[in-house]
Amino acid sequence: MRATVIHGAGDVRVEQVPDPSLREPTDALVRVSLTCICGSDLWPYKSMGADDAGQRIGHEFLGVVEEVGSQVTGLRAGDLVVSPFTFSDGSCDFCSESLQTSCVHGGLWGTNGTDGAQGEAVRVPYADGTLVKLPVEPDSELLPALLTLADIFPTGHHAAVSAGVRPGDTVTVVGDGAVGLSGVLAASRLGAERIIIMGRHTDRTDLAREYGATDVVPERGDEAVERVRELTGGQGTRSVLECVGTGESLSTALRLARDGGRVGYVGVPQDGGGVDARELFMRNVGLAGGVCPARSYIPELLPDVLSGELDPSRVFDHTTDLDGVPDGYRAMTDRESLKVLVRP
Amino acid sequence: MRATVIHGAGDVRVEQVPDPSLREPTDALVRVSLTCICGSDLWPYKSMGADDAGQRIGHEFLGVVEEVGSQVTGLRAGDLVVSPFTFSDGSCDFCSESLQTSCVHGGLWGTNGTDGAQGEAVRVPYADGTLVKLPVEPDSELLPALLTLADIFPTGHHAAVSAGVRPGDTVTVVGDGAVGLSGVLAASRLGAERIIIMGRHTDRTDLAREYGATDVVPERGDEAVERVRELTGGQGTRSVLECVGTGESLSTALRLARDGGRVGYVGVPQDGGGVDARELFMRNVGLAGGVCPARSYIPELLPDVLSGELDPSRVFDHTTDLDGVPDGYRAMTDRESLKVLVRP
Repeated sequence: MRATVIHGAGDVRVEQVPDPSLREPTDALVRVSLTCICGSDLWPYKSMGADDAGQRIGHEFLGVVEEVGSQVTGLRAGDLVVSPFTFSDGSCDFCSESLQTSCVHGGLWGTNGTDGAQGEAVRVPYADGTLVKLPVEPDSELLPALLTLADIFPTGHHAAVSAGVRPGDTVTVVGDGAVGLSGVLAASRLGAERIIIMGRHTDRTDLAREYGATDVVPERGDEAVERVRELTGGQGTRSVLECVGTGESLSTALRLARDGGRVGYVGVPQDGGGVDARELFMRNVGLAGGVCPARSYIPELLPDVLSGELDPSRVFDHTTDLDGVPDGYRAMTDRESLKVLVRP
Repeated sequence: MRATVIHGAGDVRVEQVPDPSLREPTDALVRVSLTCICGSDLWPYKSMGADDAGQRIGHEFLGVVEEVGSQVTGLRAGDLVVSPFTFSDGSCDFCSESLQTSCVHGGLWGTNGTDGAQGEAVRVPYADGTLVKLPVEPDSELLPALLTLADIFPTGHHAAVSAGVRPGDTVTVVGDGAVGLSGVLAASRLGAERIIIMGRHTDRTDLAREYGATDVVPERGDEAVERVRELTGGQGTRSVLECVGTGESLSTALRLARDGGRVGYVGVPQDGGGVDARELFMRNVGLAGGVCPARSYIPELLPDVLSGELDPSRVFDHTTDLDGVPDGYRAMTDRESLKVLVRP
């Protein structure tokens, strides 16, 4: 079959790879209907060292079950399913506490010999613990929206939950990428009254407004902090969603928080900087978040997507087939595209 | 009157200072019955630059109201009161949200021209918002225990609350100083089942056991992390109380937390280090805490002290008068004393 393989910075190829097959009785094989490129895929695309053998990549997919192992009880061939961006056994201490990203048998797609999602098919370990069955037809128009349940919508939701967003809240969202926009949608869904998005790309901030943002702050760093304080009676916002992942953005996020407030961070930290406890101490600002246990949030978010109440798929502004994936990486890196949807 | 003045590292003196008097109609004058030396007083004692004029010091006191301003409505001369270690107006946005440490008119004792607590009397701004009346006689044996409500007991409680301690929880307390021991007591009060204290002073860890600690870990750094993991099935504890304030102790605290767990920190951060979001991201470990809004916790903690159910005063192992304060600083710095009680 064909799948995307990254060989180093700027070097993404679509190649022939071995067809996946069941290895464990708890596996399932899924034929990928939809996948996409994630902002976090761009980090290796920008910085990975050259690697002749290459590494499978992609971690968001939705597709049809083709075959299940003998111990898979909740799924069968023909089921339409979405996978969170990590697999998990569904039964360990952490899975039972809804922290599937810490599953003792779990892992990320494309690492340690598992398949990446940007390909024609994926072998899914612990299929019962990992996959979520979708009650729609395989040709439903909702598929792109349902694909966002693999990562970005739950990740935006995780930022909002980690930041303690409550009805009536004031919220700042740092980052106008797909996750930041999902964070706006999630904060709005949780009842936030005022949502300030930091961003300077009008097409993105326009979508943010449609998702519920009430204010747009194009400034960064000190100027952004000053601007948000101006907008909030000098106080900052009780909740801040950090959806970028640099030390600078994290530092800004912490300063944007109102005294006693909380920053929920989901941007993959690219450096060790940004958090100085002295800055937070006198103001009792907290920090929570991390890699999103998407599996635990899908059941909560699914109904709002199925009903059409929310459409998190509007972040997809380009669609391509597998052959277009390398150019999709380039387009997202050059900010020509916000997020690329892929139909293998 | 006489009060303690710090003139630089290692240079604490008891001097004649002007008698305090009412300045604002919201002030009260309090004759100090009991005060004490705090671990955080030792930071300037170790590092402050030489200052001829000197600075009043001390922030924990309990005493009798001598005089109140015309706008003070909740107190009158003769009332026995305890003061939290910050003063606050009791009416601003933050005070009404129980975050009196962020009061827009508030401050710390001994700064910006306010009196320090280690003296014979204190002018208290915003007396109604700051002071808490104590329903005991001025000669009650409970006074030392009630004095702990000024700082260390609520601060230990704040660490436990910030770390999200719940009934049945596993907890690690980093630091065996007075605040760490108060944290043990507070975690135990909140129903923690297993409490591991990190410390290597047997007299302190013995008291920790009496306060509810179930395990003592004398190791530090990597070895401590390994030992706590051994004690907890490889997982670490869901809640960690950081009661020291160095980058090293904060870093250790974050590594001691179980995936999905939370560190409550109350040690005044002495350097900017200790928090690397990369360490926390994959494990969804959160950080909360800061300077304790003691004023908000006193009403909750007071009944357990009044009833004798809890005795947080056991951290006082030396008692002196004002003349003994300089030697008290030395004794605490040399770890001859855990915490010095002062009867001016």
